[in-house]
Amino acid sequence: MNKILTLSAGLLAIGAASPALAQEAAAVTDPSANVAYILNTLLFLIGGFLVMWMAAGFAMLEAGLVRSKNVTMQCLKNISLYSLGGLMFWATGYNLMYTDVTSWIGTFGPYSMQAVGSADVETGYSVASDWFFQMVFCATAASIVSGTVAERVKYWPFMIFVLVLTGFLYPITGSWEWGAGWLDQRGFSDFAGSTLVHSVGGWAALSGAIIIGPRLGRYVDGKVNVMPGSNIPLATLGTFILWLGWFGFNGASQLAMGTISDVSDVSRIFVNTNMAAAAGVATAVILTQLMYRKIDVTMALNGALAGLVSITAEPLAPSVPASIMIGAVGGLIVVVAVPLLDKLKIDDVVGAIPVHLLAGIWGTLIVAANTQSEVDGVTLSVGAQLGVQALGVVAIGAFTFVTTAIIWTILKFTIGVRPTEEDERLGLDITEVGVEAYPEFVKG
Amino acid sequence: MNKILTLSAGLLAIGAASPALAQEAAAVTDPSANVAYILNTLLFLIGGFLVMWMAAGFAMLEAGLVRSKNVTMQCLKNISLYSLGGLMFWATGYNLMYTDVTSWIGTFGPYSMQAVGSADVETGYSVASDWFFQMVFCATAASIVSGTVAERVKYWPFMIFVLVLTGFLYPITGSWEWGAGWLDQRGFSDFAGSTLVHSVGGWAALSGAIIIGPRLGRYVDGKVNVMPGSNIPLATLGTFILWLGWFGFNGASQLAMGTISDVSDVSRIFVNTNMAAAAGVATAVILTQLMYRKIDVTMALNGALAGLVSITAEPLAPSVPASIMIGAVGGLIVVVAVPLLDKLKIDDVVGAIPVHLLAGIWGTLIVAANTQSEVDGVTLSVGAQLGVQALGVVAIGAFTFVTTAIIWTILKFTIGVRPTEEDERLGLDITEVGVEAYPEFVKG
Amino acid sequence: MNKILTLSAGLLAIGAASPALAQEAAAVTDPSANVAYILNTLLFLIGGFLVMWMAAGFAMLEAGLVRSKNVTMQCLKNISLYSLGGLMFWATGYNLMYTDVTSWIGTFGPYSMQAVGSADVETGYSVASDWFFQMVFCATAASIVSGTVAERVKYWPFMIFVLVLTGFLYPITGSWEWGAGWLDQRGFSDFAGSTLVHSVGGWAALSGAIIIGPRLGRYVDGKVNVMPGSNIPLATLGTFILWLGWFGFNGASQLAMGTISDVSDVSRIFVNTNMAAAAGVATAVILTQLMYRKIDVTMALNGALAGLVSITAEPLAPSVPASIMIGAVGGLIVVVAVPLLDKLKIDDVVGAIPVHLLAGIWGTLIVAANTQSEVDGVTLSVGAQLGVQALGVVAIGAFTFVTTAIIWTILKFTIGVRPTEEDERLGLDITEVGVEAYPEFVKG
Repeated sequence: MNKILTLSAGLLAIGAASPALAQEAAAVTDPSANVAYILNTLLFLIGGFLVMWMAAGFAMLEAGLVRSKNVTMQCLKNISLYSLGGLMFWATGYNLMYTDVTSWIGTFGPYSMQAVGSADVETGYSVASDWFFQMVFCATAASIVSGTVAERVKYWPFMIFVLVLTGFLYPITGSWEWGAGWLDQRGFSDFAGSTLVHSVGGWAALSGAIIIGPRLGRYVDGKVNVMPGSNIPLATLGTFILWLGWFGFNGASQLAMGTISDVSDVSRIFVNTNMAAAAGVATAVILTQLMYRKIDVTMALNGALAGLVSITAEPLAPSVPASIMIGAVGGLIVVVAVPLLDKLKIDDVVGAIPVHLLAGIWGTLIVAANTQSEVDGVTLSVGAQLGVQALGVVAIGAFTFVTTAIIWTILKFTIGVRPTEEDERLGLDITEVGVEAYPEFVKG
Repeated sequence: MNKILTLSAGLLAIGAASPALAQEAAAVTDPSANVAYILNTLLFLIGGFLVMWMAAGFAMLEAGLVRSKNVTMQCLKNISLYSLGGLMFWATGYNLMYTDVTSWIGTFGPYSMQAVGSADVETGYSVASDWFFQMVFCATAASIVSGTVAERVKYWPFMIFVLVLTGFLYPITGSWEWGAGWLDQRGFSDFAGSTLVHSVGGWAALSGAIIIGPRLGRYVDGKVNVMPGSNIPLATLGTFILWLGWFGFNGASQLAMGTISDVSDVSRIFVNTNMAAAAGVATAVILTQLMYRKIDVTMALNGALAGLVSITAEPLAPSVPASIMIGAVGGLIVVVAVPLLDKLKIDDVVGAIPVHLLAGIWGTLIVAANTQSEVDGVTLSVGAQLGVQALGVVAIGAFTFVTTAIIWTILKFTIGVRPTEEDERLGLDITEVGVEAYPEFVKG
Repeated sequence: MNKILTLSAGLLAIGAASPALAQEAAAVTDPSANVAYILNTLLFLIGGFLVMWMAAGFAMLEAGLVRSKNVTMQCLKNISLYSLGGLMFWATGYNLMYTDVTSWIGTFGPYSMQAVGSADVETGYSVASDWFFQMVFCATAASIVSGTVAERVKYWPFMIFVLVLTGFLYPITGSWEWGAGWLDQRGFSDFAGSTLVHSVGGWAALSGAIIIGPRLGRYVDGKVNVMPGSNIPLATLGTFILWLGWFGFNGASQLAMGTISDVSDVSRIFVNTNMAAAAGVATAVILTQLMYRKIDVTMALNGALAGLVSITAEPLAPSVPASIMIGAVGGLIVVVAVPLLDKLKIDDVVGAIPVHLLAGIWGTLIVAANTQSEVDGVTLSVGAQLGVQALGVVAIGAFTFVTTAIIWTILKFTIGVRPTEEDERLGLDITEVGVEAYPEFVKG
């Protein structure tokens, strides 16, 4: 849904409900409009704190899936990226993404939230609540990267990368669609961000994984050395947190709940989101049983996440069976792609590339089967919609992959991205943080 | 509260507030009715995500209370049961429980959420939001079982059991009461499910524990070998998650917050729910100090949960002191029943039978002291209410215990429920999942 | 914001929105007033469950930062203090703090929530929802203490201290401001409790740390022996939980969201709260890098918390840049004060004194720069406001420090506060709880 949509339609709908008040519908003095404003804002606040909570989910997921010598660093990176990402989204990100977008980019400078009362009322919700909701989305994109490139990237180069991603790159491609830029004008559809958030994070992770290279000892003599995660219940907790947060991620992307229609849509989004995730788990569980005769728990967790990413581009229009199918394919993608990446010697520590990039592409393309946009008053055909979905995937993918590759390369050849081999062997917790994650437990 | 209650009363109340609008109260064009619809739906959504979060709570509680060699399996079972339980509740559960219930059972087939707009408006809330809320309740019942039978049940037989429980057994007994079936017609009262959810899960756990038998080495030569949980902070986290989720579990079971009366009731439910849990903790702490001269933390955690289960059958009517008393007895039940089960050689790994079954029975019976239903226009006496409460406990208990015992038995004698002794000794994480929970920590 | 504010202003605002209804604004029959009542109550419920969740945050933070031999005890203390604190706040706390406060103290006795319907309607929200929200605040103050005095205080003396703090001391100083007592009458301003909650907890922790003394072996021969926390991801999780909960803590302290103005204020509070925390992290990260050439993750976590505490006294009035500055100073305080306390041989296990006491003082004083109260119809000057802020800090600090010191001293010389040296060396998990936190992991 177009994120700069003003909610006049919703206000009108409420006003129209009581014929006698219809003439005043646009005016703020309509008590129904007041209530709609409050409810819309409340949706952003609830959705916002649920998505904020996803930052904890990524932290736990990644802390559980890295080796114990890098757990503290992963915690530190995650709380830092959420913090600095938020600061950057205020300093430059929001305005680049949403303010006076000229097809390709918005304006430059910090966002002002002071003028509450005037600007807000016309939009139908508090601008601060909207900012908060958009900020936590931006942080999510950065969280995706930290998992893939874990265990082998120094703190400061990673944080510089985060600053550029959250302050500039994510907002620019975001402006193309949610800022009502050129992709939106062509009818591209990405309800809650399979491409705009998840694939952007995924492309940034992919370029990083390629340029930075795999962890020491990961691929030796054509063999993949398994480096098991150090704490599976923590990774499970992280997945549950993300699943919970996703109700805010997708649900509040409806952007309004001031009408019966909107809140019913939010409800169906909840259901579809949940079913896609459930189907992702079921698929991963069944496939790993069939393929490996064991049920790989990390595949089940990533299956849930891939189901969630898959449904994110359109969590409203599909029926429940369609949502189940969409999520199931997400789970399938994870099971197939995780070993494939290893064959390509792309070392993705937590599996974020299959989950966020590949399932994100799948989710974006399948939108065409369930929704067709209207462009210049004409509804696109399924084929044309698929075309514009592919265009969006390619355009945002190319931009993000190339720009992030440039950033990673610059970092690599200036301050350096990787720790020394000795430091990497010792683990970043000792060498960069000076605090071990589990100092008392003897390591086997 | 009767879960198929249409909210016309609430709508009328709002309409009546403004006399001029009273005639239109039933019509959707009343803006107050719109707002009530939105708020009722919002209650289901918030309650729903809080109860969904309880799935994570059970996962952490159980992961913390099993031995480290079975932690991954417990995580896998929990995310799987939430996923597959939700799919089954869509495929068959919801309609069996709520649609055209003929006293004993509803209709068969998947639930359709497509017709939003028409069906919803008359009920006073989004049907999808209601479905979501009922689904997470169903998943809760399944979560209860996994804790009791942990460490000695193979993945697939357990999951088959979950499919039957969530798709058929839970919905059938649920239909008797929340589907307005025969128990509801007799005046049985179970506000948020002490019996319908918690005892059902508890009976299924009990039949499983008996038929499957205890863990290897648990009871040897008349002695109980303590098998301590591997991660107490995780179990504590799980308990806090469950406590948090319970505000949604009990609070949103009010089913409406579109009137002053309803939202005030939800508020009092929050308070009573919290106080019962607090009293459960206090009782367990004091009793274990007196009985064992140490304060057993697992009793304190289970005391909180038993307090919560106890108040669940009627969290609205009791005063605060009464809620404290009800929760305190829940805590007492835990302290007394946990060692008792061991005497009976019933191996309940996490203590779910005292918490969910026994405290659930207690909570259901004590309802009679605080609420009396109206049947055919006549309010039941306290004694008659107690009688119908006991009838519900026995009827649902008998049905669930017998049917689940049959399922466990069939599973036992067909595909087999238990791993081989060698596999059980090695732990299910290695033998069935192939992923250790804490691969780097040396086990003592 | 004054917590006993009746919401008549809000109701009037809504009523006034539709001129035809203005005359009825005060009457409950106004449907807009009904909606405002529901929304105000909903804010307390959402804020309440978020702050309740902070109890889990403190538990995880502290469980992660103590040594593994005291982890179970820390879990037990935290769930116990939340439980018993809540019971005490019902038995005596709420009425002492809020009911008929005579400048210095309210009335004595348990709070009755029975009279729902009459009392509630006039106040503009459910009294039970308000009670729930105030109760979780009270529990927060107690949580702060348990972290500082961890690893060396026996269970029962600690719990007795909690009973006095939550039942009497916190409510008395609370009544001075939020009960509309003498400090409020002088224009003291503490929006969500930098002083009333966080500093009160901090002073109680400080007096405890001094009187109880440091852990065995902490300060030997003028050297500080580092005693690293046993589980950093758990401490990180705790910090994220607290951060999430703080949206409820500060946001719902607006006490109303029944008008456009109120819900917009809540939104800006969300943003400012988040930015202050982010700035606290950024400051701690940069400073520890510069000072120690490593980025101390515990400083980053405490930096977030100090940023949150700093903004709590006034999260609404500051601009975003001002909020960033306020939070950044909070982070600075942590980095500077943590080693300073060690120089003074004050052993604060989790760093709660810098975070809650010192940042709380800072946050309370800086209020003067952003808000000036009106006293007897005259707006205070910045200087006068600063004076009354300092007065509040000193008065509440002196009262709390002295009274808690007396309690700790009495406990010390009666039942004794500390375990025997041998017990302290063994760890409280074995000696008092009898349950180890991680029984299977070999300790290094």
